[in-house]
Amino acid sequence: MLTRGPSSTGGVNKGPFLAPQVTVVGAGPIGLAIAWRCAARGLRVVVHDPAPGSGASHVAAGMLAPVAEAYFGEHELTGLLTESARRWPGFAAELTEATGVDIGYRTEGTLMVGLTADDLAEARRLWSYQQGLGLPVSLLRPSQLREREPALAPRVRGGALAATDHQVDPRRLVPALRLAAARAGAVLVTEPVRQLSEPSGGVTVVAAGCGAAALTGLPVRPVKGQVLRLRTPDGGPPGFRHVIRGYADGEHVYLVPRECGEVVVGATVEERTDVAVSAGAVLRLLRAAVDLMPELAEYDLVETIAGLRPGTPDNAPILGPLPGRPDVLAATGHHRHGIVLTPVTADLITGLITGEGTDDPLLTPFRADRFHPDSKEEDLWS
Amino acid sequence: MLTRGPSSTGGVNKGPFLAPQVTVVGAGPIGLAIAWRCAARGLRVVVHDPAPGSGASHVAAGMLAPVAEAYFGEHELTGLLTESARRWPGFAAELTEATGVDIGYRTEGTLMVGLTADDLAEARRLWSYQQGLGLPVSLLRPSQLREREPALAPRVRGGALAATDHQVDPRRLVPALRLAAARAGAVLVTEPVRQLSEPSGGVTVVAAGCGAAALTGLPVRPVKGQVLRLRTPDGGPPGFRHVIRGYADGEHVYLVPRECGEVVVGATVEERTDVAVSAGAVLRLLRAAVDLMPELAEYDLVETIAGLRPGTPDNAPILGPLPGRPDVLAATGHHRHGIVLTPVTADLITGLITGEGTDDPLLTPFRADRFHPDSKEEDLWS
Repeated sequence: MLTRGPSSTGGVNKGPFLAPQVTVVGAGPIGLAIAWRCAARGLRVVVHDPAPGSGASHVAAGMLAPVAEAYFGEHELTGLLTESARRWPGFAAELTEATGVDIGYRTEGTLMVGLTADDLAEARRLWSYQQGLGLPVSLLRPSQLREREPALAPRVRGGALAATDHQVDPRRLVPALRLAAARAGAVLVTEPVRQLSEPSGGVTVVAAGCGAAALTGLPVRPVKGQVLRLRTPDGGPPGFRHVIRGYADGEHVYLVPRECGEVVVGATVEERTDVAVSAGAVLRLLRAAVDLMPELAEYDLVETIAGLRPGTPDNAPILGPLPGRPDVLAATGHHRHGIVLTPVTADLITGLITGEGTDDPLLTPFRADRFHPDSKEEDLWS
Repeated sequence: MLTRGPSSTGGVNKGPFLAPQVTVVGAGPIGLAIAWRCAARGLRVVVHDPAPGSGASHVAAGMLAPVAEAYFGEHELTGLLTESARRWPGFAAELTEATGVDIGYRTEGTLMVGLTADDLAEARRLWSYQQGLGLPVSLLRPSQLREREPALAPRVRGGALAATDHQVDPRRLVPALRLAAARAGAVLVTEPVRQLSEPSGGVTVVAAGCGAAALTGLPVRPVKGQVLRLRTPDGGPPGFRHVIRGYADGEHVYLVPRECGEVVVGATVEERTDVAVSAGAVLRLLRAAVDLMPELAEYDLVETIAGLRPGTPDNAPILGPLPGRPDVLAATGHHRHGIVLTPVTADLITGLITGEGTDDPLLTPFRADRFHPDSKEEDLWS
């Protein structure tokens, strides 16, 4: 689509003197990663965000969990998650090399557990499904579980290991991406974009999370998530190393340990548009967390926070041109998967912009026109 | 002890030009109320506090509950609590008249409840004791309980009314007392007092909460309390009007509703010196609160906070001169009762300073020398 502008030399250019070739709306991980990739290709990039990194990524735990997140009926999404997770090690290494920033990328893997017999039965259905897809899920006996994580409650009935499900710290990732994008020549401005301008030769990428709906009319809706952050009382690392995901008396919870002593506990999934923290959600999350790992009761509760994920009707992201607007590319609707999907989204959207990846088959299930009335009718008759 | 200084006219004086007659260490409710009372008598008063109102009172719920707080073996303390609560309506009226500040004084009374049969059995032992002291405790049938507070959980087994146990908002009280003290002529300075000076003709009042130990050597120790603040989602008043105090599966909790929509949920009692908020404490408080009043799950959780109460070996305050230092008056060790004891403490200490109340029998059980080794020996031989 676009090639290097006349001002670009050596991958670094100073945008303000010429109209941008790429305008990115939204400086979350998705928007910043796209800006970084495009600027590194020599394109003139401007990113608009009045409050960079203040959206869903500020709340997110940063699990890179295509296996644990492989749910019934989301086969195509699972494929994209898996592909993006596969790209994460390289992406992380490249980002750290470009910036010197430690983004908290950790590879200890994820333990999935069930507290009660009922919880375990529900979890096993999902693990069977995941194994049926060929995903690497190893069932563990309670003794094996406790060998890996002695801090798990003795009453945890069973579990499984998703060794390839990793984690990153989104609050380190976003500043690193900002720095990488800036070093590559992208310009970040705080002026918001309130509406799409007329086509003018450049490309606009809408990576505005929930804000995409108002800009594009796409069916992106806020899905509220409440999250807690605990911290070890002594500031040392937490007493466990795997990401723990579990069912505890029917409540789903995850526990993400960070080297700095932080443990992220999440998350609710609510069809609400407010960002208030509710007493009931904190109670449910803490109860499930402490049931699975009793020592967490002694940890400090240092933050309670809520954010809005950009959800779509099929829980999958929207990637590519708006119907009727080939110059406007959506990169939104990542729902609970924004962090894991950052590398593949950046690659795919950059490929669309440079013209090197316009027919990538990965894109097909996630096109914006799948929600278009005409598209639906076609489906019905096909 | 002291009479009006030469500079005092009309109850207002400008202290800085003459040495203060009364130096108050600590600008919590106790210190400020003493400063107000003394300044109103025409004394030159200086109050020292680097962070006024930032101690236990900032965390406190503000229950004025001599009846519900009447515990086995604390007969003399109960007498002081009762006397101070009796003075509260006049104190509140006078303070509001002096300042125009609404301090959130409310008189709907306190409901004491038990969730389970075990909780109720434990509560009934205490209610019997309280009734035995002649305190106004009326047992309520579950139907009567729910008539008064329909929002109580249906499974609450029973309760009792302490109609004379009221409440005030400490976060409104402290600014009101500051204003009243200032208007009466007291001067507030932020220089801390790190040690007691030699006797110099004036009186020093140590109302420094936990800080009293380092200044005086008195056996005042920090007793940690963790407290939550919830808020109605719509900002309207909470769905209940009484203070609720209850046992829920062995956990003691109180719920204090404020007109502004706030509900204070407290409080842990921990022999710890840190002010970290722990996951376990928040879990226990929320669980007990929601068990007693399910609608609280829908409220916003707006604050988690911990403070340090000044505790003493017998849970009672220390009021009066230090052994060997008649010019230094302790007004500390109020433990969980600082707010309710503010009026009587201010009156008693002011009486000691002016010489009008040096033999008030209310003071006898709370003298500083009761912890003195000599005093103990006397007790043993008497």
